[in-house]
Amino acid sequence: MLDTIQDLRSILFGPNSQQLLMDSVSHLQPYDLAQILLALEYNEQQQLVEILPLDLATEVLEYLEPEVQYRLLHHASPERAMALLRTLPSDTAVDLFLAIHPRQAELLMGWLPDEYRERINTLMTFPEDTAGSLATVDYIAAREGWTIEKTLAHIRKVGRKAEVISYIYVVNARGQLIDVVSLKEMILASPQTLLSEIVSNSPIVVRADSDQEEAARLLSQYDFLAIPVVDASNRLVGIISVDDLVDVIQAEATEDIQKLGGSEPLIESYLKTPVLTLFQKRVWWLLVLFFAEAITGNIMRHYQDALTEVIALSFFIPLLIDAGGNTGSQTVTTLVRALALGEIDIEDTWQAVKKEMATGLLLGAVIGSAAFVRAEFMGVATNLGSVVGISAFFIIAWASTVAAILPMVLHRLKVDPAVVSGPLITTLVDGVGILVYFNVAKLLLGI
Amino acid sequence: MLDTIQDLRSILFGPNSQQLLMDSVSHLQPYDLAQILLALEYNEQQQLVEILPLDLATEVLEYLEPEVQYRLLHHASPERAMALLRTLPSDTAVDLFLAIHPRQAELLMGWLPDEYRERINTLMTFPEDTAGSLATVDYIAAREGWTIEKTLAHIRKVGRKAEVISYIYVVNARGQLIDVVSLKEMILASPQTLLSEIVSNSPIVVRADSDQEEAARLLSQYDFLAIPVVDASNRLVGIISVDDLVDVIQAEATEDIQKLGGSEPLIESYLKTPVLTLFQKRVWWLLVLFFAEAITGNIMRHYQDALTEVIALSFFIPLLIDAGGNTGSQTVTTLVRALALGEIDIEDTWQAVKKEMATGLLLGAVIGSAAFVRAEFMGVATNLGSVVGISAFFIIAWASTVAAILPMVLHRLKVDPAVVSGPLITTLVDGVGILVYFNVAKLLLGI
Repeated sequence: MLDTIQDLRSILFGPNSQQLLMDSVSHLQPYDLAQILLALEYNEQQQLVEILPLDLATEVLEYLEPEVQYRLLHHASPERAMALLRTLPSDTAVDLFLAIHPRQAELLMGWLPDEYRERINTLMTFPEDTAGSLATVDYIAAREGWTIEKTLAHIRKVGRKAEVISYIYVVNARGQLIDVVSLKEMILASPQTLLSEIVSNSPIVVRADSDQEEAARLLSQYDFLAIPVVDASNRLVGIISVDDLVDVIQAEATEDIQKLGGSEPLIESYLKTPVLTLFQKRVWWLLVLFFAEAITGNIMRHYQDALTEVIALSFFIPLLIDAGGNTGSQTVTTLVRALALGEIDIEDTWQAVKKEMATGLLLGAVIGSAAFVRAEFMGVATNLGSVVGISAFFIIAWASTVAAILPMVLHRLKVDPAVVSGPLITTLVDGVGILVYFNVAKLLLGI
Repeated sequence: MLDTIQDLRSILFGPNSQQLLMDSVSHLQPYDLAQILLALEYNEQQQLVEILPLDLATEVLEYLEPEVQYRLLHHASPERAMALLRTLPSDTAVDLFLAIHPRQAELLMGWLPDEYRERINTLMTFPEDTAGSLATVDYIAAREGWTIEKTLAHIRKVGRKAEVISYIYVVNARGQLIDVVSLKEMILASPQTLLSEIVSNSPIVVRADSDQEEAARLLSQYDFLAIPVVDASNRLVGIISVDDLVDVIQAEATEDIQKLGGSEPLIESYLKTPVLTLFQKRVWWLLVLFFAEAITGNIMRHYQDALTEVIALSFFIPLLIDAGGNTGSQTVTTLVRALALGEIDIEDTWQAVKKEMATGLLLGAVIGSAAFVRAEFMGVATNLGSVVGISAFFIIAWASTVAAILPMVLHRLKVDPAVVSGPLITTLVDGVGILVYFNVAKLLLGI
């Protein structure tokens, strides 16, 4: 990459720059060229965007952050800026317009053809995280009455700007989606076949106001390369291509993992996130958990006499509350992921809870026995083994049950179940764990 | 779906079944038809596979488990079984052959043409989780000397079986990959252009022995629909399409989430996993953590005198060890995910550790102050507030540091950092936490 940067520096402002440039970058992927651009000085970046072939410049632009896109467009020659903006994929353009100041966006949008601007405006109305917010209008539409031959000619004409040319979207005069026909079907059919002979009137679609996860789920279930997005009247709003959904799938998993770990999800990538942001994303949950956990101290104070009498009781507190927390963390992560993947849903609540309770009883029996042996072996007080063993059994069974019920309830309430993190479950079961422990102790030790 | 099942039942064995069948299923996606097939009786399933058009039958087969695929092939008429096997995508065929008994697999493979069998045999040699194990040989290859026109004609001829027709793989006489040309480029170019005029000799590839995550990372970085898989001599082994990698991305995230929650990853989906398997996946980690945590009990025993003197010290043990565990869990989940996404790598170790230490100091200051206030407010012993506050500060700073270093070290040792789960970090920092707490107590309380 360093070589290429040196090469570019010596070429960019010299004679014959366009030809020399193509010789040194034609073997690069747009993504890599974007990384190289970012390593250049601002004026070199501008010059690169100015003299690259338009299609390649647009593709490079797609991999840059909206702020960088805007800076490059703002300082480019007016003709170049307009051309770039018009060839930019519509989903990238929408992200750009939403990221910059509304007045700047308005100015840029003024350069777009009227009809295109209207469609972009529609895309901009969909709230974040909905399927509509991911849609692009750069799809290829066709009419039922067209032959394959006519459709292929149409693809040749408009295909350059299309996000996906693997599918043709057959719409009627009102813009309603009739069916999706794959390029494969068309290439394999005879040129005189009418599209109406291939369509089957039952495309798989996603509603623009659905959650983006729904789009990701459908796409991965049906192995499509793109999925059409429609409005309430089945009018085609746009399409979402698989590469955009791969990003969504990764981002949703990242968000769930960070939430399950007990912090608010980060917006930027790790290295770009400053310490103060990391701090802010974590401190609130730590404080909430801290105050919830403070109750456990009050419960323990209530059993001060028992503790004073058998000080060895305190030795097993970390063991018992961690055993509960660990079991709860295992259950909650498994269920939250199963919910996110759609492997289980509301109607499976009872089955999941039963399963986790059964698993919890088995785990409780094993860890309870281990705890019994451990406490007996320590030899600190008569009967303490039974107290610790029985408590461990109940605490683990309880933790599994709570950790199964909570995410299912939140899912039913349409709250993201990933807020039930491992740390939250640990904190929630601690108080009950301490209660169980001291009551078993009072009963068995007669204190 | 119930309607369709009733429909099928009344049609399958009746007169004119093939025509009636197409009328009632032509609007369905293969995935949906596969779900319907699974709801039918065995003999109905066989009949459905027998009379569906071959292409559709194959597509339905792709969505079934290997055991079901084998049963259907085994009981189908010999001609049908052979035809199905030959049209099955090669990655699906490989998964089938690897899942059934080697002798059954050998029998089925005997039905394949020699050259195809050899390529399948090569695919079967790649270990699980490598890029090679995901590859399919159902790609379209072309030679540099071909014109666009000839290539398009070739696509029409062989495209039916191809997994992806969006890319053509240009290879030389030794089978080495020269470049990947997109169907879009070809459709937009003039028919007489030679492929050699379009190729650039620098395709992005993945080595067959690379980890499948590497393939997923490249594909999502470059927004490709498929990525070529090559051997050490740059010979084209196969391709991996984006829909297969979406499954990999989902599966890898699921595995990480389950590991981070402190259990071994599940192989099957949640509802299909029996209680005993859930138990087995969880119990070992719980036991390991249990024995590690048992050490904390020994440490506490060491401070028995201090505890007896100031019994209130025990009230804050759950609070302190949970605060450490929670902070550690936040750090570890964030870093493990950043490593999985390639956002950070070995060379960023020091930067990540510094960042987490700084965040830990800030969090320690806030939670330490809260702990001070809480302990003072409880009014159980003089100076206890300072003890609890100072301990909380050190414990949280320590937890952040350990939770940052461990995943980075494991990553460097090429061990999956996700084994450092939230529960593991909690357990690891507990012992030190108790040590810190009692030593601060001895120092400040003079006990």
